[in-house]
This record gives sequence, structure tokens and C-alpha cells, in this order.
Amino acid sequence: MSGDRPTASILAVGSELLGTSRTDTNSLFLTAGLESLGIQVVRKACSGDGWDDLAAEVRIALERAPLLIVTGGLGPTDDDRTKEVVAQVFGYRLVRDEEILARLKERFARRGFPMPKVNEKQADVIEGATVLKNPRGSAPGYLVDDGARVAVLLPGVPVEMRGMWTDGAAALVKGRFPSAGGIHRRTLKVAGMAESVVEEKVQPVYAAFSGDPVTILAAAGEILLQFTALGSDGETAAKLDRIEAAFRTVLGDDIFGRDDDTLEAVVGGLFRRAGKTLAVAESCTGGTLAGRITDAPGSSDFFLGGAVTYANEAKVALAGVDPATLERAGAVSEETAREMAEGIRKRFGASVGFAVTGIAGPSGGTLEKPVGLVHVALADEDGTVVHRRLQLPGDRAMVRRWTTSVALSMLRVHLLGGGREERERSR
Amino acid sequence: MSGDRPTASILAVGSELLGTSRTDTNSLFLTAGLESLGIQVVRKACSGDGWDDLAAEVRIALERAPLLIVTGGLGPTDDDRTKEVVAQVFGYRLVRDEEILARLKERFARRGFPMPKVNEKQADVIEGATVLKNPRGSAPGYLVDDGARVAVLLPGVPVEMRGMWTDGAAALVKGRFPSAGGIHRRTLKVAGMAESVVEEKVQPVYAAFSGDPVTILAAAGEILLQFTALGSDGETAAKLDRIEAAFRTVLGDDIFGRDDDTLEAVVGGLFRRAGKTLAVAESCTGGTLAGRITDAPGSSDFFLGGAVTYANEAKVALAGVDPATLERAGAVSEETAREMAEGIRKRFGASVGFAVTGIAGPSGGTLEKPVGLVHVALADEDGTVVHRRLQLPGDRAMVRRWTTSVALSMLRVHLLGGGREERERSR
Repeated sequence: MSGDRPTASILAVGSELLGTSRTDTNSLFLTAGLESLGIQVVRKACSGDGWDDLAAEVRIALERAPLLIVTGGLGPTDDDRTKEVVAQVFGYRLVRDEEILARLKERFARRGFPMPKVNEKQADVIEGATVLKNPRGSAPGYLVDDGARVAVLLPGVPVEMRGMWTDGAAALVKGRFPSAGGIHRRTLKVAGMAESVVEEKVQPVYAAFSGDPVTILAAAGEILLQFTALGSDGETAAKLDRIEAAFRTVLGDDIFGRDDDTLEAVVGGLFRRAGKTLAVAESCTGGTLAGRITDAPGSSDFFLGGAVTYANEAKVALAGVDPATLERAGAVSEETAREMAEGIRKRFGASVGFAVTGIAGPSGGTLEKPVGLVHVALADEDGTVVHRRLQLPGDRAMVRRWTTSVALSMLRVHLLGGGREERERSR
Repeated sequence: MSGDRPTASILAVGSELLGTSRTDTNSLFLTAGLESLGIQVVRKACSGDGWDDLAAEVRIALERAPLLIVTGGLGPTDDDRTKEVVAQVFGYRLVRDEEILARLKERFARRGFPMPKVNEKQADVIEGATVLKNPRGSAPGYLVDDGARVAVLLPGVPVEMRGMWTDGAAALVKGRFPSAGGIHRRTLKVAGMAESVVEEKVQPVYAAFSGDPVTILAAAGEILLQFTALGSDGETAAKLDRIEAAFRTVLGDDIFGRDDDTLEAVVGGLFRRAGKTLAVAESCTGGTLAGRITDAPGSSDFFLGGAVTYANEAKVALAGVDPATLERAGAVSEETAREMAEGIRKRFGASVGFAVTGIAGPSGGTLEKPVGLVHVALADEDGTVVHRRLQLPGDRAMVRRWTTSVALSMLRVHLLGGGREERERSR
């Protein structure tokens, strides 16, 4: 990334952020906002709310970058002292703002009770600072600027923080730190393939765009290709399009979506467009495949339902597996998966039946059928049955998650049509 | 909390931690580890991997607290320079360790290929530092100590970081920063109740232990009561026991577990102990109830399976609901929920049948049956059928999660026996 762009740091204030169960996540939103203005985040920190600690952290941050975004510590209690500390670091006084005081009293009156004395301090503003309105809460925010250093103080409550950034702070920061253009990010998504296969395929693209940072993130059956471009909106869109086109040349239909697309929503869209319906029978995924399909709103348009056939009796009674097949090939086998897929399709009268049977672990594995072995099968109305035998890595949770990604990916490939399944199987 | 305890800061290194999709979470684990040694975390920061940035952050951190834990930047690539930077800040040299080099080469040889040249630098150790072994990866860690300042360097990969802390670093830190006793934390867990009801009940306990921090965290149907005590192991255990006893006096069996207990595992244990089996029929939760039950390993001991009856036809065909009931009362109704619970119990031959039908949203709601309306029912072999009508807050994901918590909570109460269900229903 370029070294000429304005830089910023982010400081999250609150002792609860130094505990064992919560950490700052506001900075992810703010980083995206700053990047879109062409400002690069060079550090992040979390501070407790003690006066000395907080003052030290504000000073340190302003030495490291000319722009500091602080979240939290703007409330009415004694522990809220971000405003006071920042005023002191800048050498500015606090002055009572009668208009804000009147608005605060009105806010409380509307809810039917008098304003507690403790809230009065929220009407003390940093002299010379720009006050940022907070329609979603009681604490106003601030932009403090001494010509060399700028601090933007935002609430810690995510919905208030986001609103104040979007409605006011972002434009002020943009005016104060003009940049040739923003950093824009695009993500392409691939599912159901091994990371190493994707890496091999995209190697030539890596080489062609070596000056631009491309990141590959992999998580239980989904692979994300992230890349960024810097410049004006038009320039960056063209550049991101070029990189995307290069990836599509080597990956083609293996790319299922972009940015906020989810695999389940993409599959749902394909079912809707094809006017087809789906039913699933699942063993080791235990309902999480159906759960993921129904995560997407409107899934009742195409998803008829499913059976969680944990016990063998349920595989027979609900998914129509022949007891002789279970006896001969076992519950985790290609034969059982195929019969489950066909059986559940018939049972629900669905266009497509999908089945999963496997060993998620941690126990139940053998040398022949180790933990992570999963058979999946897809049956459709034309009599096609596609089967894959998977050997998945990781613990119980990862095997289950990975299986649902492969399942959704197979459904997608099937609905895209053609002979792609055979290619898919041979991978 | 006391101000006399040793203090520490945590620094996470890696440019990816300054982006928009990932942030440091290793610090949550490390904070718990440090607190158990009686060491208080006073700040956390994330730094990019540029030399100057990283050197500045290490210096700043060591000025703010005498102990610094750094994660990340120990790998073999050019971007990995935590070891080099920390050595420079302390003024120590790097020296080649032939034993480590031999081990690295062996590690690669075992996998059947020669060690890349780039990995050689992992055999350069900080002179005078204690080397921390990394059985789960290739990068060793370090404890650097100049008598006044201590820096512990751990890998960024969570499993490696955790292993190195637990197996070696924690004991060394404990010896170097002896403390009168650790901060110990206990969490009690409640499910299936409104947060306001729990808060009202625990008010007297709050008042009695006002000197000790008690935190209530609520998340979609589960409520956590967290409290801490500081001192030697014996003292803190006794104190935590006293606070726990006070909570149990007011909440009794409403507390389902402690610390790492999960509701699904607790329910599984009760089914196993009772020798009973379970089957579920779910509509709006779409498989996520079965999915949550089977998250716990060994659930096949008692969970026979379930049906995801999204379409009305499936409610009839799989869960044995009378079409006339659907016609008369609708899919989301007490009658349908009761018939689903009895039907799925019979279909699977289970001791207990559980059913969910509701409107998770975002669409599908009416004035009479708004989004968030959920009917749940439990049927057992004695002919008991318990029903609850819920009106749950939040979006689709929250309604679904909340419903599974209520369902598991009802199963737990049922298995604990007695007339508790009636009390549960009247809440």
C-alpha cells in the first residue's frame, strides 16, 4: 500500500474491553470507513478508563498518526472521561452548552422523568470543537482539531457510533484529510474445493497483479479471494473489475459470489429461478445443513424440509433406506448416501434430494472409516444421482461446517447444469 | 480491582489485523491466562508488520507495563520480524542455534522434502533469551528479560499460541511476576427466561456483594452471571462459592450450568442419565435445534433424529399433523405444535418428542401472528404435553437462536421432573 496516504489510529476505551469475554469490534467498521476515504489505519489500541492510562494512550496515538478515532467513554457516569481527557491533552477547556442542556432535559421529559444530575456533564463541550449530534443516544460526539492533530470522539455503542460516523464525522474527516481516492476492496468467493487447488489455479493471476495485495482466506469449505485498489471511485472500480476478470478466467463458475453473497442465498436464488424444490436427509451434520439453507430468508419458496436421520431406524423409516443396504455397506457408505438422497426426494415429493452420512467425530472412527469420512449424494427427477466421498480435516465442528459447504456447492453446480458434476467429482 | 498487582500489555502483530475483516482475539485467551496468575492487563494494541511501526509499538508497550506479550510475526517470511525488532529494542543480538536448525530440517525431512532456505532464519535465536518450544508448528517462541522488562513472543496461530502459553510461557511468567494470588472468574448460566426476570431475582445478591464486580451478559435466550475474586486459590474458591451459593438461593434450578457448560451438553447428560431418547420436529428453526443438540459429541446416545417440516405437507407426512388442524388453526398454532410433538415422538419411537413452529421473519408476520411468534411443545410417553407460546424479539437469526435455547431449557426442566413445568409455563 502507498505510503503517501493520510494515516489514522483507532482507540477503543473501556475496562470491559480488557477482560476475557469482549473485545473491540467497532474498529472493523471504522477501518472500512477510513479506507473508503483513502486513509490508512496504522494502529489500533484498547485502553482502560482510568485517567492516566487514557491520557497516555491518547498522547501515544496522536504521536503515531495525525488522526485519532476514539470510541467509548462519552456517557454520563464517573467512569466516562474520554471528553475530559482529550480536552486536557489538547489543552482546551470544557464549557457548558445551554442548548445541549435544554435538548437533554427535553429528551428526558419526553420519556416522563426529570434528567438526573449526573447527565448534566454531557452538556459540557470541548471549547472550539465541532459537536457531533447523536440522534440515537444522549452522548454527543466531538471533532477536536488543533491544526496539527485531529481527534474524533464517538460513542462506544455500535449503533450510535455507526450513525455518528456516517451522518457527520465521515464528511468532516474527508474534508480535513483530502485524499486522491479511497481504498476499495472486493472479495470473490469459492466453495467446495481444496484450498491448494484454488491456490494453484490462481497462481498466474497472482503473478500478473504482483503489485496489488491479494489475500486468500480459507474457512471450512469456503475460500475468499480479497483484493484492493486505491484511487478515485471510477479508477478503482475499473481496476477491481480487471483483477476480478483475471480470477474469473482461471476459476470460472467455481466463483459462487462476491462481497456479501452467501452460498446458501446463491443456492436459494438458483432453486427459485429453476422453479425446483429441495429436501435433505442428513446424519452427521445433524440438521445444520437444513439450518444453513433456512438461514436465508424466503427459503420456504423452495425448501420443503428434511429429515435428521441420526439413528439407523430413522434412515429406514424417514429416508427409505433398505435395511439390507445398512447391513451390507454400513450407515456411512456410498450406497446408503445414494438411497437416502433418492428416498428423501420421494418422501417430500421434491425435485432434488440431498443426503449426508458421515463420521464427524471425535469418536466413532475406524481405520477403514476414519473421523472426517463423509458421503454425500444428490438425486434429481431425471434419475441422476451424484455421489462424492470426502475425507475432511479438523474437529467435529469443522467437519460439519465443511460438509454443509460441499453440499451447497454441489447443489449449485447441479442447478447450473451441464456436465459439470463429472468434473466436480474428479477433483 | 487492586492496584498492587503486576501489570501487562498485549500486542498483536500483523497487517491483516488492521483490515476490515479480522481482529485480534488471541488476547482474550491470554488475558484469562494472565489474570489467573494475578497479572492485570492494562492495555492491548494491534500493529502492522513494518519495522518502524512495530519497533515503536514494542517500545511504547514496555513503557506502559513491565511485561509484554506479543503474538504473531514469528514465521519464516520477510514480513515476519517480531523477533528481530524485539531483539533490537532490547539491544540483544541474534545467534544461529544449530540444534534448532537440525530440528527444523528434520521436521521438513519427515514430510518428505528439503527445508526451504527461507526457513533458516527460524533457527536464529535472541541471545540470552529463553527459547519456547512449539510442538504444533515451526516457529519457536521467546522470553526476553533484561531485569526490568520482560517480553514474551508467541506465534499468532491460535492453537500454537495457546499450546506455547500453557506448556511453557505461563510457568515462566508466574515465576518472574509472583503475585499474592490470581483473579478467578466464575460464570453461572441461566436459559429460557427473560433477562428482566433474572435481574429482578438477583437484585438482593447484587446488593449483598456490592463490593465485587458482577456482570450480567444476555444473548438470545441465555443469561450469564459473571463474577470474579482475587487472592490465593483457596481464598478465591471459597469466595466464589459464597457468591454462587447466594445466586443459587434465588435462582435454584434455573441455573443450568457453570463456566464451560453448554445447555445442549447439559440436556444430553440428563437424557443419558434418564435412559430416555429424543426426536424433534421443527419448522421455523429449520434444523438448527437438531443442529445444536448434535453439536455435542455423543448425542447419538439419546438423539434419534428429527424432521424439518418446512412445508405443510411435511408436517402431515413426517410429523403426523392432521390436515384439518392445519386448516383450522394454521401452521403456527398451539394445536399444530402439540400434534407435531406427539407425531414426531411416535414416528421415531422416542421417549420425548419436541416441536417448534413459528414465524422467524423477516416476512410472513400478521397483526395476529407477528414475526417472532413461536409455539413450542413437548410430548412424553406418559401423555404429558407441555406447550409454550413465545413472542421473541430480534431478527430472524435471533428468533431462531432464542427458540433453540427455550426448547433446550424446556427439555431440561422436563427431565429434572416434578411440577416445574407449570411454574415454567406461568412465567
